[in-house]
Amino acid sequence: MPMAKPPLALTLGDPAGIGPDITLAAWQARGAGAVPPFVLVGDPDVLAARALLLGLAVRIEIVADPREAAACFAEALPVLPLAVARAVVPGRPDEANAGAVQQSIERAVALVQGDAARAIVTNPVSKAVLYRAGFGFPGHTEFLASLAGTQEAAPVMMLVADELKVVPLTIHIPLKDVAATLTPELILSTLSTTARDLERYFGLARPRLAVTGLNPHAGEEGGLGREEIEIIAPAIAEARRQGLEVSGPHPADTLFHAQARGTYDAAIAMYHDQALIPFKTLAFDHGVNVTLGLPFLRTSPDHGTAFSLAGTGKANPMSLIEALRLADAMATRAGDGH
Amino acid sequence: MPMAKPPLALTLGDPAGIGPDITLAAWQARGAGAVPPFVLVGDPDVLAARALLLGLAVRIEIVADPREAAACFAEALPVLPLAVARAVVPGRPDEANAGAVQQSIERAVALVQGDAARAIVTNPVSKAVLYRAGFGFPGHTEFLASLAGTQEAAPVMMLVADELKVVPLTIHIPLKDVAATLTPELILSTLSTTARDLERYFGLARPRLAVTGLNPHAGEEGGLGREEIEIIAPAIAEARRQGLEVSGPHPADTLFHAQARGTYDAAIAMYHDQALIPFKTLAFDHGVNVTLGLPFLRTSPDHGTAFSLAGTGKANPMSLIEALRLADAMATRAGDGH
Repeated sequence: MPMAKPPLALTLGDPAGIGPDITLAAWQARGAGAVPPFVLVGDPDVLAARALLLGLAVRIEIVADPREAAACFAEALPVLPLAVARAVVPGRPDEANAGAVQQSIERAVALVQGDAARAIVTNPVSKAVLYRAGFGFPGHTEFLASLAGTQEAAPVMMLVADELKVVPLTIHIPLKDVAATLTPELILSTLSTTARDLERYFGLARPRLAVTGLNPHAGEEGGLGREEIEIIAPAIAEARRQGLEVSGPHPADTLFHAQARGTYDAAIAMYHDQALIPFKTLAFDHGVNVTLGLPFLRTSPDHGTAFSLAGTGKANPMSLIEALRLADAMATRAGDGH
Repeated sequence: MPMAKPPLALTLGDPAGIGPDITLAAWQARGAGAVPPFVLVGDPDVLAARALLLGLAVRIEIVADPREAAACFAEALPVLPLAVARAVVPGRPDEANAGAVQQSIERAVALVQGDAARAIVTNPVSKAVLYRAGFGFPGHTEFLASLAGTQEAAPVMMLVADELKVVPLTIHIPLKDVAATLTPELILSTLSTTARDLERYFGLARPRLAVTGLNPHAGEEGGLGREEIEIIAPAIAEARRQGLEVSGPHPADTLFHAQARGTYDAAIAMYHDQALIPFKTLAFDHGVNVTLGLPFLRTSPDHGTAFSLAGTGKANPMSLIEALRLADAMATRAGDGH
């Protein structure tokens, strides 16, 4: 009998949010290999209580080693136990439990670095709750980068669905600060990381990257802004010199209809809404957030904690299920060359 | 026999662009009332030459009065003649013809102001060509507003398709200037004009307007930018006090998927790409540009002159056809109360 593949490591996320709900629902959807084996790094009691509240018959299996997860996955939801500090009330976040949220991420990273997990899938956290508890990172991604150790380049966020792959070059900054944040170096490093990881994890030998402009009509040759001429086009030219297949800067408004999407493998957008508007317009409930440029694989659903839906039975698990499937497919692809 | 309704007045646009091509194609699609009667204000020789080049058998009828247009429309494409200065080469714009382009617009406005036309539909112009010829307005819309005489409020551009109606609050300015251009007065006047004209022309008694935020996640309560708190929310509050049904500021990325679009009649976006990205993602080839806030009706296709397609047979007339249909429907709706 072949040795079972290691599972995916699924983090706890904020236990007062919909993380437990969608974890239970994802496991229930596992039939016929539809969801790859995962192990939750979290509190089995939280999960059991949420299952009871939702009226779900889910057998929970506490495992000591993630390698037990694959064997039991058909029969039970495997949990690597990590207790929360205080009893969880769905919808009521409690900073007393921020430590467990953080430890779950740390343990998941240790698992994937020790080859005991194939990839990390993260349940949503609340930044506000973590900040109040003294969390010292802007978000999930920066914390993961820190745990991963030194990095050649910053991690890159890519949103993935069948309809579109898109990378926002800048993310959580005010719109008025976007122009001043763009540099040729940032664009070039993002193009390099994206191209390399599209090859490594998606099997695209020479990925076609399409870069948006910043301004209306990509600046109309300088008439509506000069960032295309001074920052974006030079970065594209340099990326081409380095052998990447990059087009643009393209007017962003005509880059996301069906015919245009057929001309590239991933779009690189200049700011949050320029990437997220087309992505969520096309793939509202099944998009996946992938972090590229880390030494391990990480995906997550592209939604938040949705505290108001926790424990109600209304949380949609589709984005988490897609995040688990994509992490599995990417890990398989990356492992093909081993 | 009832008096025939006045036709729509269709302007020439840049004669070296696809205007003549799509005008011919729109007329050919007229069967069974699919395209409402229009009269082209332009050069019949340009139209005849383009028809010859494209191999189209189109009878052109020179009319002296637009009221003849409806009677002949089934048999011939009616043209109110206005000669260009120099022979037109498709794909090669010539500023010698900018005068005719401008006069066509002036005559169309005179027709609609004299009730000889029901509405104006404009073919695409090249701003660069008009500027070189000394045209003194930023664009079509400002020229129309000037011809219309004094205005209470600035005209409002609305993009219309079955999938979405959306208004960009600011349009052709660099992205870095958007934040400084937003004022509560601009937002309030745009909301008022949009609500009034949605009622007048679309029969929506109490239109639901959804306003986007400027920043990612609509600013996350000030953490990612303060324009939502300082500018947008106060304008929304004032609009509500004035009796309008307005929601927001909403995170822009989750406002354009199918379920969200069901919650409003029109979205008000803060800048060009925030409006145009979802619109062209959803309705790339059949969107219509409507100018609200003028004392007459004007629609246009939402694309440009496409010089490289002129005379090739590859120009898609769908957006012009939709612009003609929508102008007709809006004029009919506005006339219901007469």
